[in-house]
Amino acid sequence: MADPWQECMDHCLAVTMEAGKMIREALKKDISIMQKSSPVDLVTETDQKVEALIISSIKEKYPTHSFIGEESVAAGAPSTLTDNPTWIIDPIDGTTNFVHRFPFVSVSIGFAVKKEIEFGIVYSCIEEKMYTARKGKGAFCNGAPIRVSEQKDITKSLVLTEMGLRTDPEHFKASMSNIQKILSIPVHGIRCPGSAAVNMCLVACGSADAYYHIGIHCWDMAGGAAIISEAGGVIMDVTGGPFDLMSRRLITASSTAIAERIAQQLQVCPCGRDDTEVMLKSSAADLVTETDQRVEKMIISAIQGKYPTHKTHCHAQRGKGAFCNSARSCASGQEGITQSLAVTEIGTERDEQVLTTLATSIYRLLKVSAHE
Amino acid sequence: MADPWQECMDHCLAVTMEAGKMIREALKKDISIMQKSSPVDLVTETDQKVEALIISSIKEKYPTHSFIGEESVAAGAPSTLTDNPTWIIDPIDGTTNFVHRFPFVSVSIGFAVKKEIEFGIVYSCIEEKMYTARKGKGAFCNGAPIRVSEQKDITKSLVLTEMGLRTDPEHFKASMSNIQKILSIPVHGIRCPGSAAVNMCLVACGSADAYYHIGIHCWDMAGGAAIISEAGGVIMDVTGGPFDLMSRRLITASSTAIAERIAQQLQVCPCGRDDTEVMLKSSAADLVTETDQRVEKMIISAIQGKYPTHKTHCHAQRGKGAFCNSARSCASGQEGITQSLAVTEIGTERDEQVLTTLATSIYRLLKVSAHE
Repeated sequence: MADPWQECMDHCLAVTMEAGKMIREALKKDISIMQKSSPVDLVTETDQKVEALIISSIKEKYPTHSFIGEESVAAGAPSTLTDNPTWIIDPIDGTTNFVHRFPFVSVSIGFAVKKEIEFGIVYSCIEEKMYTARKGKGAFCNGAPIRVSEQKDITKSLVLTEMGLRTDPEHFKASMSNIQKILSIPVHGIRCPGSAAVNMCLVACGSADAYYHIGIHCWDMAGGAAIISEAGGVIMDVTGGPFDLMSRRLITASSTAIAERIAQQLQVCPCGRDDTEVMLKSSAADLVTETDQRVEKMIISAIQGKYPTHKTHCHAQRGKGAFCNSARSCASGQEGITQSLAVTEIGTERDEQVLTTLATSIYRLLKVSAHE
Repeated sequence: MADPWQECMDHCLAVTMEAGKMIREALKKDISIMQKSSPVDLVTETDQKVEALIISSIKEKYPTHSFIGEESVAAGAPSTLTDNPTWIIDPIDGTTNFVHRFPFVSVSIGFAVKKEIEFGIVYSCIEEKMYTARKGKGAFCNGAPIRVSEQKDITKSLVLTEMGLRTDPEHFKASMSNIQKILSIPVHGIRCPGSAAVNMCLVACGSADAYYHIGIHCWDMAGGAAIISEAGGVIMDVTGGPFDLMSRRLITASSTAIAERIAQQLQVCPCGRDDTEVMLKSSAADLVTETDQRVEKMIISAIQGKYPTHKTHCHAQRGKGAFCNSARSCASGQEGITQSLAVTEIGTERDEQVLTTLATSIYRLLKVSAHE
């Protein structure tokens, strides 16, 4: 019987190649412009353009298929995986790397039918490495078969992870303590390359022996999950249980022995689920900070201009939470409002045009109408 | 006046290219052989071959020049920089990456005259990126001019560093706490690519905004120091004072503002100096561990075979220190012996041939006759 999904995979490959080219073009812009003026704008603009390219091209060919990723998040819905053929898309995995031109930036697409991943494609587009895997048919990099290292001894392993500030200090503490525990096993070393999808491919081709992460999203993992499995690797939950695409966490490794050893070490903080909660794309969170801070300053000065005796209790923190807090504590005092409403509300208090534009751009950036 | 050192730089470029090719060839060996049997042997063998290629080629052309790096360490002398033209060489920077084929592995050469670096060449040979800089003439990657990002705002910066176990728990604690402090400034992110010389080049070409490290060696920094300076970057000591090639520590950044901000955050543990102490090449330390442990087991069983009532108080730790300790505490009880003597001493106690071979190979690996 002919492979029912091969045509989808061929189409995916073509569109991913195109998307990668678009990202490389965006990176040709003057780096000083990128870094100084508005990295957030550039990443948002490119993210949207690449996503539009991918989705429109797939929708045209497969109008009945479903999508998970930026688009579903933008629509305000949790990412629910149904039995319908579903494309799980991250147009730019490694947005912080993208802004800095740090060389690991990828387009990641996983394709699932009846909740099972049929194929995955990750294009590390600065390195020009195209990783592909079709269920049961092996994994490849630029057409050449790849395989995990098959290392079983954790003390000889190179481990990948990422570290970053979380809104929640508990998470941050746990993440640093996990790194210390893994290093103390000991292992050969820990590397932090900054793109979840590329990390999975580095394990798949044997350049690292394990990768673990708590707090990522299904669109960061779907493409890589197919590749790691077809390369002979292991993928499991951070607790040592079965991998769950919607769980926002994973361990991948060259062997069960290494994956289980890492699972034993990890302290796991709750990080929510992609299929029950509406989340901000985490890789954009870093970049949101600076917009957040700029906006907060404007809000505070707007409030203080109008209500000089009011107390403004704002603190610049990362991502969505902080922004909601500022809006809430500084302005409306209401609970349960959406971010966009919060901003628009403040927007009416001073310079409507400026703040509405701001609100629109933040809304576009966050792509979340929060349900809290 | 013609540039007196241009010819040396041309020669350096040719030999570095050749060395990079040799490393790429070595990496073509079956990865499962590399990872399972003897990564240490492979890295040692390649390290020596590449070093021999570089030094013999330079010595033939410039017989009066001096060398610092593996060779001087092997000769048991501290790395003293004189006024004589001096080649400061790291044949493989990123040995752990090399063993795992993690894509950042480089050949790094700096050339100093009257204690000033005249040119630097770093060849990131898996990526095939050749970074070059001649004092006063700018920095280049594959012939194209490169420049730092010129980012001045630390909160928008991407910072590079490395983390690893140190023999000394104090150092390890300080290194983890430094990472936490930098992340909390906050910065966009921290990346750990695993090659000091490549890290410096990533800052030089604007793919990252800063790199700091405590505990590296002059041969890890000499090539990159020329490149970062010529790319418009800043290089300083971790205390904020002037950079000292022999100090085993540095901050490089896109701007003074960022470098100084990092210096403010760092807790600095003493790490010795290259010009007063004999050190084991730190990048090999991880790999030494496993040899160390194997050898220690052999030593203990040899001792216990001959002196079953003696107490053996050995603990597998990293690098030279641990090995000396084992030898000392388990066998000779003497202080101030060289490692090679320690091993040979033990060698005579059991199977002379096996242990002498072992001693020779350890001697070659460590390339240090310790002066303690």
